[in-house]
Amino acid sequence: MFVIITYDITDDRRLNKVRKVLKRYLYWSQLSCFEGIITEGKLAQCMAEIDKIIDKKEDSIYVYQVKNPKNIKKKVLGIEKSYIDNFL
Amino acid sequence: MFVIITYDITDDRRLNKVRKVLKRYLYWSQLSCFEGIITEGKLAQCMAEIDKIIDKKEDSIYVYQVKNPKNIKKKVLGIEKSYIDNFL
Repeated sequence: MFVIITYDITDDRRLNKVRKVLKRYLYWSQLSCFEGIITEGKLAQCMAEIDKIIDKKEDSIYVYQVKNPKNIKKKVLGIEKSYIDNFL
Repeated sequence: MFVIITYDITDDRRLNKVRKVLKRYLYWSQLSCFEGIITEGKLAQCMAEIDKIIDKKEDSIYVYQVKNPKNIKKKVLGIEKSYIDNFL
């Protein structure tokens, strides 16, 4: 399935940890956005890892799931970014 | 259709302008993320407004479109945020 993960994380240490996890599973497409094709099993694994890092009263992670990647269309205005080798 | 709009905008003045436009069309669900149900016509109108604001060599706007909202599922880890009355 195709997923988009967006996040608001108030603490830089937790933020970096979450990004490190997400980087192993998905593509870092914008500063606060990861995306990619992933199996349900891998996504559950990824979420379990993130669950241990975040502060559930402060941080916010949204996971948008589209079973069939054909059902989602992405348009880009401006530049297409990538953070593959940046920051971490 | 259901859309998710994420953005990286390097300049605060442009960022605020873009948010002001997006607020009129969609729901501000995370710091760098808007979402909601919108018609193709309204989305085109919204994009035309944003197109005039952004610097196409620096800024980045992603528009993820799912025609049938039933095809997208959202899960929240941590808290569900909202910026309806904040910042602007």
